[in-house]
Amino acid sequence: MSHEKFPEQDRFAEELAWVRTEPKVPIVTPSPYPAIRFPEPIHPFDRPVRLEADITGVECVQGEIPAHLDGTYYKVASDRQFPTYVENDIGYFNDDGMALYFRFKDGRVDYKSRYIRTPRFEAERAAGRSLFGKYRNQFDDDPMVEGMVRGNANTNLFYHGGKLYAAKEDAPPIVLDPDTLETVGSYDFEGALTATSATAHPKIDPVSGEMVFFGYAAKGDTTRDIAYYEADATGKVIHETWFKAPYSAMVHDFAVTQNYVVFPIIPLRSEREWIEKGESAFQWDGTEDIYLGVLPRKGDGAKITWYRGQSRFASHIMGAYDDGRYIYIDCPSSPGGYFPWFPNLDGSPHDPKGAEISLVRWTLDLADTSRTFTQTKIANYGVEFPRMDDRRETLEYSWGAMAVSDVPGARKPGRGFRWITTVDIATGVQKLYDPGDGSTVGEPVFIPGADDAPEGHGYVAVLVSRRDAMHSELVLLDAQNIDKEPVCTLRMPMRIPKGLHGNWVSGEELAARTA
Amino acid sequence: MSHEKFPEQDRFAEELAWVRTEPKVPIVTPSPYPAIRFPEPIHPFDRPVRLEADITGVECVQGEIPAHLDGTYYKVASDRQFPTYVENDIGYFNDDGMALYFRFKDGRVDYKSRYIRTPRFEAERAAGRSLFGKYRNQFDDDPMVEGMVRGNANTNLFYHGGKLYAAKEDAPPIVLDPDTLETVGSYDFEGALTATSATAHPKIDPVSGEMVFFGYAAKGDTTRDIAYYEADATGKVIHETWFKAPYSAMVHDFAVTQNYVVFPIIPLRSEREWIEKGESAFQWDGTEDIYLGVLPRKGDGAKITWYRGQSRFASHIMGAYDDGRYIYIDCPSSPGGYFPWFPNLDGSPHDPKGAEISLVRWTLDLADTSRTFTQTKIANYGVEFPRMDDRRETLEYSWGAMAVSDVPGARKPGRGFRWITTVDIATGVQKLYDPGDGSTVGEPVFIPGADDAPEGHGYVAVLVSRRDAMHSELVLLDAQNIDKEPVCTLRMPMRIPKGLHGNWVSGEELAARTA
Repeated sequence: MSHEKFPEQDRFAEELAWVRTEPKVPIVTPSPYPAIRFPEPIHPFDRPVRLEADITGVECVQGEIPAHLDGTYYKVASDRQFPTYVENDIGYFNDDGMALYFRFKDGRVDYKSRYIRTPRFEAERAAGRSLFGKYRNQFDDDPMVEGMVRGNANTNLFYHGGKLYAAKEDAPPIVLDPDTLETVGSYDFEGALTATSATAHPKIDPVSGEMVFFGYAAKGDTTRDIAYYEADATGKVIHETWFKAPYSAMVHDFAVTQNYVVFPIIPLRSEREWIEKGESAFQWDGTEDIYLGVLPRKGDGAKITWYRGQSRFASHIMGAYDDGRYIYIDCPSSPGGYFPWFPNLDGSPHDPKGAEISLVRWTLDLADTSRTFTQTKIANYGVEFPRMDDRRETLEYSWGAMAVSDVPGARKPGRGFRWITTVDIATGVQKLYDPGDGSTVGEPVFIPGADDAPEGHGYVAVLVSRRDAMHSELVLLDAQNIDKEPVCTLRMPMRIPKGLHGNWVSGEELAARTA
Repeated sequence: MSHEKFPEQDRFAEELAWVRTEPKVPIVTPSPYPAIRFPEPIHPFDRPVRLEADITGVECVQGEIPAHLDGTYYKVASDRQFPTYVENDIGYFNDDGMALYFRFKDGRVDYKSRYIRTPRFEAERAAGRSLFGKYRNQFDDDPMVEGMVRGNANTNLFYHGGKLYAAKEDAPPIVLDPDTLETVGSYDFEGALTATSATAHPKIDPVSGEMVFFGYAAKGDTTRDIAYYEADATGKVIHETWFKAPYSAMVHDFAVTQNYVVFPIIPLRSEREWIEKGESAFQWDGTEDIYLGVLPRKGDGAKITWYRGQSRFASHIMGAYDDGRYIYIDCPSSPGGYFPWFPNLDGSPHDPKGAEISLVRWTLDLADTSRTFTQTKIANYGVEFPRMDDRRETLEYSWGAMAVSDVPGARKPGRGFRWITTVDIATGVQKLYDPGDGSTVGEPVFIPGADDAPEGHGYVAVLVSRRDAMHSELVLLDAQNIDKEPVCTLRMPMRIPKGLHGNWVSGEELAARTA
């Protein structure tokens, strides 16, 4: 090789003349839309992602994808389409719903994500900006969407009767195509959903195949009305009854057993005058008792019985069952308000001590005419996102899993859910999965290891946010041994945004799809 | 709010019994496919991305998107579908082509990415693993794909005659839908492409609308045959002629003027015996001269004239024109081999000094019977990815832009292209865009500020890899003032993988699409 210089002539001095040249055409012309520009979050991981994406064959960086696993883990994320005009918005609850799935088949996993085309989403897309304001406050909306359903379908994805539903508790559910995640449309159960809303936490009775669900604020936000429905295994509504709660509150979840349905009314209250004044739609009232409304399955709402207890917080139900005399309900509960973003009605600041949460069992004695109930702590750690082996829904059960925000004595840095725990309800044994520092976890979802696997034998799917590395992973754990090395780790090339609930649907169930 | 304790009973000791429980179902079952697991790159930014994604309304974190800008910036990326079985693979050249676009309209930008479904891609997807081996070596492939076209369409996206093409120089081009980026299929110009390959760097004559292109190794890899074509403005081939190069080499680009076409043969040689032995298909031979083959436009290949010069490297042509007597060709050139991944034929190690590259002008005097040419340095810095205002293709021009890997005296950390420079060919004035530390840049692509904008008046689009922050940005610069604050910065929520070339296509051109 030769390095001889070619005859060269340096036409330019080392010191360049940095001439400013004014362009002879317009360079900046104003946009008809406001700029899409999100505020800088505290951590860059928490920026909106907004990707509608497909990956064929997600990378498996650890372990092996079980080849016999055939089905889809559906999950919803909260991912804002346009910047909000609301100060200190509750993004987790108020951002747009993005449906995600991880489809397992033959040892491969495909990923898909699509925005859920709610009427709200479509209206904002057409306008090119946010039109809906504060969480659950229609008076904060742009007048052009007055009266429009506000649901953003960002709370849960579930499957029943051959349909994939995306739900938010203030609106009817949205039906999605389970293969493409395209939005089919808003669904009112062939006209049978007479309430303005339906819960994001229906229960599917594994014995009958029925879906038990309800709508609260069922005549519009802040109304005390609750409508309770059951649909048969095909999705046809076969039961409807109405009643009124003692006060208007957020009724995020409920408990269903083989013989009873229980509606917890906790004092995260909601009043029309608050939203009219522009205050938070939900406020914590520590002076107010909690009420558990008990009805026999398919019972008449007029005959509801209210069991009463001292004020406390609860939201998600891990599991519930009855033995004819007692109803057992397991849920994370804290003595005071749990959510820091909902203010205390008395004006006091959020109290972290009152928000300390753990898994408890409520026991209702149907023979006890005092209409009270007991509470027993049944697991350690600060926990939420309780899940069970859904094949035991409504039945006595033993296996549960939760996300853990706080392990007393643990010196782990960071905030949010940073471990997963399983709990054996029968023996009290808990195990911990630790994703490592700089990572947070989402809801743990159980996947049966086989159709006929014993309860709790199979996998726990958990979406891990590798916050420091700016990407996400889906980790599959052995549900009996989550403290062992994961079964496999599926590495995503990007972040998956914050999200709430999801569910596993087997390939066999999906083959029976009707929408 | 009250913190009184409820009657509680801690059922579990603080010291938990960490019982191992063997699952009663199979947890790991072997996959029929090899795991998709990529080697850990030196920097995590360089992992494959593999996302087929849509973003409606990319976030604009700085400046304002010019509302009058109507068109699409197409670019191709190299993004491996499956891990390779090749050691020290040349990923930039040998990974799968992913088509990307940024579509500008009314002050909004939408993003889309889709894998290009080459026959090679589809065969590997069906097999669930890599089937094609070393770069440009068919003998390293799985026998099941013997004889299959090896092109991965990862070099350029360009638009002509109403069609969007994805190209790799060793295969016929692939036609894509310009709106959906779906693959229409491999295209042989209605049977007129008689060569086995077509260049990824065709030139579109702005006067006639003709597309001038060629295929080298046109009877199969390592053959000396070159086929030169011209297609009219509709894409119909109207000229074809063949000739042989002095030796078989990589002919990545060529020069086209109003009256001439020039084929540079540089000693990045390729021989069949090398690939049969499993050696690198291309090797640098510093003892071999370079040859510039000159033909009149639409001339007869039998009458080609070879201009000869001392060994040196060149690849991309910024621009070329002729004035009847002289042909001027501007290109980055280095005295020795530029690519560190292609070995030297004499076994010596890659020589960084010989790889020092800068923009030069070659001048061919058609009246000089010595058949030599001169070389003059016409810009500073280490540069590649030279581009011009494509409206001046084949014509005398003044405005150019390049990516800069090296600014003498600059103390900027990192490797790769870390600045953009513009150069005024007429005055020698250069300006620099510095994206900041921890960032690299891709090819600068010119976008006219208006249909009738003077040469070089408008924008430079440049994809910036924010490597340290693990995401990409599309930055729009004022083409006359790239050293000023960008016109706007579009922030992507994820990385965009390494990639080569792209082009701007106006909305008006896209409206005339034929495929």
